[in-house]
Amino acid sequence: MVQETELFNTLPPHVWPRHARRQEDGVVTIAGVPLPEIAEEYGTPVLVVDEDDFRSRCRDMAAAYGGPENVHYACKAFMTSHIVRWVDEEGLCLDVASLGELEVALRAGFPAERITAHGNNKDEHYLERCVESGIGHVVLDSAQELERLEAVAAREGATQDVLVRVKPGIEAHTHEFIATSHEDQKFGFSLASGSAYEAARACAESESLRLVGLHCHVGSQVFDAEGFSLAAERVLGLYDRLIEDLGLSTEVFNLLDLGGGYGIAYCAEDRPLDVESVAHDLRTRVAQHAENLGIESPTIMVEPGRAIAGPSTVTMYSVGTVKDVHYDDERTRRYLAVDGGMSDNIRPILYGAEYDARLVNRFAEGDPVLSRLVGSHCESGDILVQDAEYPGDIEAGDLIAIAATGAYCWSMSSRYNMMGRPAIVVVRGGESRLIVRRETIDDLIALEVSAG
Amino acid sequence: MVQETELFNTLPPHVWPRHARRQEDGVVTIAGVPLPEIAEEYGTPVLVVDEDDFRSRCRDMAAAYGGPENVHYACKAFMTSHIVRWVDEEGLCLDVASLGELEVALRAGFPAERITAHGNNKDEHYLERCVESGIGHVVLDSAQELERLEAVAAREGATQDVLVRVKPGIEAHTHEFIATSHEDQKFGFSLASGSAYEAARACAESESLRLVGLHCHVGSQVFDAEGFSLAAERVLGLYDRLIEDLGLSTEVFNLLDLGGGYGIAYCAEDRPLDVESVAHDLRTRVAQHAENLGIESPTIMVEPGRAIAGPSTVTMYSVGTVKDVHYDDERTRRYLAVDGGMSDNIRPILYGAEYDARLVNRFAEGDPVLSRLVGSHCESGDILVQDAEYPGDIEAGDLIAIAATGAYCWSMSSRYNMMGRPAIVVVRGGESRLIVRRETIDDLIALEVSAG
Repeated sequence: MVQETELFNTLPPHVWPRHARRQEDGVVTIAGVPLPEIAEEYGTPVLVVDEDDFRSRCRDMAAAYGGPENVHYACKAFMTSHIVRWVDEEGLCLDVASLGELEVALRAGFPAERITAHGNNKDEHYLERCVESGIGHVVLDSAQELERLEAVAAREGATQDVLVRVKPGIEAHTHEFIATSHEDQKFGFSLASGSAYEAARACAESESLRLVGLHCHVGSQVFDAEGFSLAAERVLGLYDRLIEDLGLSTEVFNLLDLGGGYGIAYCAEDRPLDVESVAHDLRTRVAQHAENLGIESPTIMVEPGRAIAGPSTVTMYSVGTVKDVHYDDERTRRYLAVDGGMSDNIRPILYGAEYDARLVNRFAEGDPVLSRLVGSHCESGDILVQDAEYPGDIEAGDLIAIAATGAYCWSMSSRYNMMGRPAIVVVRGGESRLIVRRETIDDLIALEVSAG
Repeated sequence: MVQETELFNTLPPHVWPRHARRQEDGVVTIAGVPLPEIAEEYGTPVLVVDEDDFRSRCRDMAAAYGGPENVHYACKAFMTSHIVRWVDEEGLCLDVASLGELEVALRAGFPAERITAHGNNKDEHYLERCVESGIGHVVLDSAQELERLEAVAAREGATQDVLVRVKPGIEAHTHEFIATSHEDQKFGFSLASGSAYEAARACAESESLRLVGLHCHVGSQVFDAEGFSLAAERVLGLYDRLIEDLGLSTEVFNLLDLGGGYGIAYCAEDRPLDVESVAHDLRTRVAQHAENLGIESPTIMVEPGRAIAGPSTVTMYSVGTVKDVHYDDERTRRYLAVDGGMSDNIRPILYGAEYDARLVNRFAEGDPVLSRLVGSHCESGDILVQDAEYPGDIEAGDLIAIAATGAYCWSMSSRYNMMGRPAIVVVRGGESRLIVRRETIDDLIALEVSAG
């Protein structure tokens, strides 16, 4: 066997779930459950979640940031009622980004007081549900929303704790085009223009709102700790000025929420951002900066989504059609088609995201072949892995799994080409259990009103 | 009122549904139904389908291609049971691209013999359903599939009519990256390498398959008739050679399926491809080329999806938050946020697609302002219209509709951020009716297995 094929048989531990192993017979297990058994029992495509991986990353974040109460899981990354309950059990807080996410969280029994509500376009109904459910924080995103929330809270006779979302004007280095702290975007109040200051002042003067902190978010898939630190220092400057100008008490106004964006490893060559060292670095710099300003350091909060959910999950597919394409006189590319695609993972086609795919039912043995992993959708852009060298012996009936699909795959999934969404299976301690069943034809037409 | 604002109040007829009008009071109606009444009754966001627009485009295609039996509606563009029935009533045939689409079509009562099955990765189960339901044609896409289908048909004691999908090696000019007839892609058999010829020969020699024609598809959103004609001539060369070499009878082997890809107008400045003149041009050139080759001209079939469904539908949203962002010292951009976004229309963020959005509940009066129309999702890339000059008086509570959202919007829709998918309302003859209801929180968690 050539070296590349041996390497292909070796799961990169920083990309795959913490409890993924390749057995001596070549079969990959997660949490002691062989993946071929999952394919047999639940079918493919299927998402397999390593529950203890997910929980361990909750704990790592909690340890790095001084306690689970300082970590808000951003459920937009991956949300089911079960996952919400894990987050609750681990003692973390929860970030919701819409009324729908809030409703699902409340129905799953997540305590409202540990929920923070986000969104660039919160309507009155969403804000009403926030206030009446007794949500912990609302992160204010616009002047209109501030007025709306004030009216809602006044009507309900409530005082709502709020943070003001600040655009610190940093463009984080990121692999995706989702950099969200620069000026020209829909979220938050500008620091530079003074609108963040004005919003904070309006909160401070309101009888129905209580300003408890400031929020910023530098981007997604950030690998550079510098962006976080620089944003933190800028926002801390505003924090200091607000305390001074408005006489705010740090008994109440004491939160600095730095958002999410911690980059994870999707491929073997990626180095994930080290949560512990970044947290240490950030907290040290904020403390130092606060000391320089002569104020008490606020409590740092963070909102990881991908960094908790992403690495916990793999998507397993069955190989269907193998086709060699001579794309010029000299070169051949092998197209390996699997039974899923852009409906269960839009990220390659949407962001050019790269993924680590491996054969999981046996050892590969063939020499590497220039390959492309594609889905079954009626669209030539339906690609899961654009360019790879896969062993030449992969064939129809083999099982391939793609790692690090916990975040933004199921949550962005569609039913394009009437391909029902995959089942979600959780593995833990040698056992598997279904938490979300596969979508059927009945489900696909369930919203139709009869008698057309 | 400045000229730009007057222009903004004028619906471009080649982009909007055929029965869209702006009344004297400024309210937009479709098929006589005022859009604000639809918003009131069904809520927003909502897709509004002009049924007679859809049906009239079916008829235009049928007229241009010599009869409805030569036109296959590609249901991947927009599929509900109701739409499938309209296609049936108009006498068109139906293209399905997956087992799921086939099942939905059969359940809606579409006659199997008028269905053609596509897909780059048809598994045995899909092929079995094709054969046992008595489907009209299977379009063969790979050597493996050919073997699979032959085995399935033999087992069922059936003879299955097939077309061979040919890559003619044309790169059509297109606005999207979905050009599907060049060599390096997952679909079809290469003309240049001889694999298309081999596949056709294998069909001709099979006792369970009956070769009835050849298929090719040049791309999506094609505006240049030249690509279709060139592809047709190349495939016709193979058609001729197969008749000669294999002694195929044109009593049976007589179909030339040229696929879809007819470009439509998304914006006022787009000129849609003229169906009638392209059809005339194509049919003339094929006839001429066949005459030159000394053969009878095959029947030309086409597979429009977008060109039938796209212009029929608008997506109506409510404006929520209006925010002016000073993105440098000199310039301001207005962010208009609506109550939908990338979950109901992924095309702007996925393909950079541009759309025509208008105020539909009244006349706009303000001077134009540099604007961006964004959704409510927790992602800064969640943009519906990237750059536009909208009148400055648009405010929270106004209704905005985006035209030409019939194709690849609902069919690619997700539930990202737990935003349930929009309702679909059909309008015809002054009446509206709901055909797909809005997705609720109950629907969002319906697939969850209880007791986590």
